[in-house]
Amino acid sequence: MPKVVASITTSLDGYVTGPRDGPERGLGEGGERLHYWVFGGPWTYAGGARGEAAGEDKAFLDAGMARLGAVVGGRGTYEAADHWGGSNPWPVPFYVVTHHPDDEPQDGGFTFVDGLATAIDRARASARDKDVSLMGGADIIRQALRDGLVDEVSISIAPITLGDGKRLFEGFAEQVELEPIGVRQSPFATHISYRVKR
Amino acid sequence: MPKVVASITTSLDGYVTGPRDGPERGLGEGGERLHYWVFGGPWTYAGGARGEAAGEDKAFLDAGMARLGAVVGGRGTYEAADHWGGSNPWPVPFYVVTHHPDDEPQDGGFTFVDGLATAIDRARASARDKDVSLMGGADIIRQALRDGLVDEVSISIAPITLGDGKRLFEGFAEQVELEPIGVRQSPFATHISYRVKR
Repeated sequence: MPKVVASITTSLDGYVTGPRDGPERGLGEGGERLHYWVFGGPWTYAGGARGEAAGEDKAFLDAGMARLGAVVGGRGTYEAADHWGGSNPWPVPFYVVTHHPDDEPQDGGFTFVDGLATAIDRARASARDKDVSLMGGADIIRQALRDGLVDEVSISIAPITLGDGKRLFEGFAEQVELEPIGVRQSPFATHISYRVKR
Repeated sequence: MPKVVASITTSLDGYVTGPRDGPERGLGEGGERLHYWVFGGPWTYAGGARGEAAGEDKAFLDAGMARLGAVVGGRGTYEAADHWGGSNPWPVPFYVVTHHPDDEPQDGGFTFVDGLATAIDRARASARDKDVSLMGGADIIRQALRDGLVDEVSISIAPITLGDGKRLFEGFAEQVELEPIGVRQSPFATHISYRVKR
């Protein structure tokens, strides 16, 4: 039975983006630092130069990739990532949650689905004996946690405060109990994994 | 030269208390779970039964105690803890930051000081070759971070969302860069230590 693993990066003060995020700047102003761990060190939207994850960050990514059976992401995240250049960057099915499934582009490898629960159901079926990665955005993760659709949560905490932006838990009033099941630390992030208690 | 180490426990959604915290319930409603790691497992304000930290939690506490040269806490924390029964529970000097230093009780082992920077200066002098623990509350830690008075930050993240209460970073608009310097994980908390970059 595939597990649904919600994975997202936040600052120490709980932001998933800096201020004024948008299509050209998915992580907001100054938000690049959230993903230094993804690219092995500093990068900027302006500069664009990017390396690769190393050490504990690579180990964390590799462990996730080894379990990856399908991906679910929100329409906002899809747009913020500029559609990943028009084609699904993962080697597994990608389900985009949207109120406008007719917007699905041809030949991009993305499947547009109206409704989070339906998207997760379809992703579970695609994932077979592997896991479903729920990549966000924050709104999708909050909704999935509220609706009891998440089996594990991985939070990668970047070693910064951003002071402004979008908070992962903005408006989230639920009391969720979790069980810590692992942690990795690099100079660029501390990755904490939890099982959601039901 | 003593280091100033800010240490506090938060929920995964960033709260240092649940809702309606007060003198009889310093961690707020449901906030006991923030400190399961301190007492080795579940406890409640109503029940009062408390064990001791074990495993990684004990190792984290012991490492802090071995470095402890002085403590600085806010008046609100002092009140929320019911004055620790009227006597300083630590074997080192304890400085309470307050606008009313004349309120200092006799023979309690607490020194009341008007002003955070002054309290930290006096604590540094007392700590000699050990460290100053800045125990909060959240408002004191935010102020110390803003004013550049913190050398290290230790955040103990309890594996819960509280959904309501007081946030550690409420109203904190600063961009602070940190360097991860250690992590420990138990069933009750993930303790992340950072050096503050200047």
